[in-house]
Amino acid sequence: MSNNETFIVGYGITKFGEQYSTNPSSSASTAITSAIHNAKISKDLIQGLYFGSLLSNTNLQPFVGAEAARECNLNVPISKVDAGNASGAAAFHQAFMAVKSGLLDCIVVLGTEKTSDYVNSSKIEQILGGTIDYLWEFEQGATLTSLYAWMTQAHMNEHNTTLEQLASVPVKNHRNGVNNPIAQYRREISLERFLKAKRISDPIGRFDPATHCDGSAAVIIVSDKFVKQHSEVEQKAKIVGSAQASDKLALHHRTTLSSLMATKVASKNAYSMAKIAPEDISIAEVHDSYPIGEILAIEDLGFFPKGEGGKATIEGKTQINSDISVNTSGGLKARGDPFGATGIAQIIEIVQQINGEADKRQVDDIKFGLAQNVMGTGASSLVNIFSNMEDDK
Amino acid sequence: MSNNETFIVGYGITKFGEQYSTNPSSSASTAITSAIHNAKISKDLIQGLYFGSLLSNTNLQPFVGAEAARECNLNVPISKVDAGNASGAAAFHQAFMAVKSGLLDCIVVLGTEKTSDYVNSSKIEQILGGTIDYLWEFEQGATLTSLYAWMTQAHMNEHNTTLEQLASVPVKNHRNGVNNPIAQYRREISLERFLKAKRISDPIGRFDPATHCDGSAAVIIVSDKFVKQHSEVEQKAKIVGSAQASDKLALHHRTTLSSLMATKVASKNAYSMAKIAPEDISIAEVHDSYPIGEILAIEDLGFFPKGEGGKATIEGKTQINSDISVNTSGGLKARGDPFGATGIAQIIEIVQQINGEADKRQVDDIKFGLAQNVMGTGASSLVNIFSNMEDDK
Repeated sequence: MSNNETFIVGYGITKFGEQYSTNPSSSASTAITSAIHNAKISKDLIQGLYFGSLLSNTNLQPFVGAEAARECNLNVPISKVDAGNASGAAAFHQAFMAVKSGLLDCIVVLGTEKTSDYVNSSKIEQILGGTIDYLWEFEQGATLTSLYAWMTQAHMNEHNTTLEQLASVPVKNHRNGVNNPIAQYRREISLERFLKAKRISDPIGRFDPATHCDGSAAVIIVSDKFVKQHSEVEQKAKIVGSAQASDKLALHHRTTLSSLMATKVASKNAYSMAKIAPEDISIAEVHDSYPIGEILAIEDLGFFPKGEGGKATIEGKTQINSDISVNTSGGLKARGDPFGATGIAQIIEIVQQINGEADKRQVDDIKFGLAQNVMGTGASSLVNIFSNMEDDK
Repeated sequence: MSNNETFIVGYGITKFGEQYSTNPSSSASTAITSAIHNAKISKDLIQGLYFGSLLSNTNLQPFVGAEAARECNLNVPISKVDAGNASGAAAFHQAFMAVKSGLLDCIVVLGTEKTSDYVNSSKIEQILGGTIDYLWEFEQGATLTSLYAWMTQAHMNEHNTTLEQLASVPVKNHRNGVNNPIAQYRREISLERFLKAKRISDPIGRFDPATHCDGSAAVIIVSDKFVKQHSEVEQKAKIVGSAQASDKLALHHRTTLSSLMATKVASKNAYSMAKIAPEDISIAEVHDSYPIGEILAIEDLGFFPKGEGGKATIEGKTQINSDISVNTSGGLKARGDPFGATGIAQIIEIVQQINGEADKRQVDDIKFGLAQNVMGTGASSLVNIFSNMEDDK
């Protein structure tokens, strides 16, 4: 027995930001409880919990998902998936396959992070050092920021991408974030301010990187079998494609610095599964932890030709209700980046948009939405594609 | 499209023991390469790598599986599954579902550990503290050993289990380990020596716990679709059941100390999937990290009634070619326990036994074999069941 179709029936998300006094498992159980409430199902229907959390390994309560499950009184198998800062989407992908396999019919997927425990500590840099090549990059002095600076410079050299084009990514994302109630930063930042900022790792400026924060997000995936047995439960989106691809950990082992091969391969496979082309995507949440991240994404996902991502962005082709609406949530930059929670937050934005629940950031006439979550500098990339339920009704 | 049947077509394992000068990724890639060689397939047929490794989070090269994949020139999606010291079996279970889902048809599953980097350090105790309730058990002074002492005492109180019965577990397992070429300890230890040993956490004696060590193990799972397309590839075992169940992290949140509810639930589900009963199992590899672990396992897996595991063991009912042959490999106790690698090593023992490749520890007329891997004091339990290929030939 296996399931051919999978759906999202509920989601829950906390405010993203600095939550010094919130217990990690309380934040996680809040997201789970909200998702169950949003799905309007009994918690007893849930058959499994998948979770991702980058820092939990070091929080020393690595099974924060198990602790949250206990708080929610969920007696289900608990699976932890680790793909560094892409752990949320990676947990989602594994849960998707578990539902597809026919073994589980209703899974809650949790992404959660408490980064503020490590304020004024180098611990987070060190843990992020594990998402790149720890021995041959991090221990030699490279950080995510310095490696992304190389990737940015390579793209500028090869495709004449400008600092203005790069800065237009976070400018747009901060503008979108203003209307996202859970976003960490709900204010605009001007292009001038990005350009005038001190370079922290040239060409990356002080305001360019997304900032890590605290937060939790959860979604509920069900099978077609579940849908048949529980006709009262509303499907909020259909999962039409889900794929992961990996690349070498270290930049020096890769063939290019100006593309994420993992994103190219994962999206190719996800489009193929969904039987669609990049042109069919109306909205995309992509991994803009640095401005170049979004430019690489919109090129490698096939929305724009290689080298034209910067130009497309500065021309407004990725703003809300343009050619393709990218990071309507504010992206990692304005929503904030609670590592493990980010991949699930991206999916929730797509589901909300598909259901017309995105209020002032709502995009019109969405058929397909895509979420892309990246580990490190591209060691793994996860691409999940969703469709609305119109065709099924 | 989905796969109804899944098979093991290859395995590879390194020697278990202290390997101070072996690089973690070299050990891992040795196991992967051996598995590919054993399967007699081209590495290009492999579509995914799943891996588990408890200490890799702290090794600071958390993606040791990605590094090993690079060394083996495997360009595939890399998934890391974390279930503490049961990460090997947990990675196997997720890979099994991925193959069942129809998304991947040939996956290599790796378990790997390098513990000797932490000799003379309390780091391993601390990391193992994350597999129990870190805040309410480990930080209050409890360790895996002191918690297992409670569980041992509870079983002694409730079922009159004796120290002699408990010691007969490692006596048998050391006897079996003598004939396992990859085992860390290939020597017998007498019952008297176990009984006379100093109590380190009463009633647990100095020689009772399994010892952690270094090592890597890998198996290759394929779908029926793969088998049809590659008729030259020999199936070594069929995966007929695979299940995970979880319990509360902390002992004080559980309903009993003298059963692992996660093992009961996981085995019930795995038997149901396999459409067999406990009586159908000829061989079992179970998690004997402490003597009580094997006694709980053989009861909770349904081989003996609750409370009779100790008696059955001292009467020889679990030795090779008796009622049920348990831990023919030597178990965690004699083979050694490289945490993440243990779950895969258990599966390899079952596959070798099923194929008549177990030399002096060979069990006759095996139909079904079972492997059980436990996280912490039972926060998660994984049960995988395999059959021989006779009926299919």
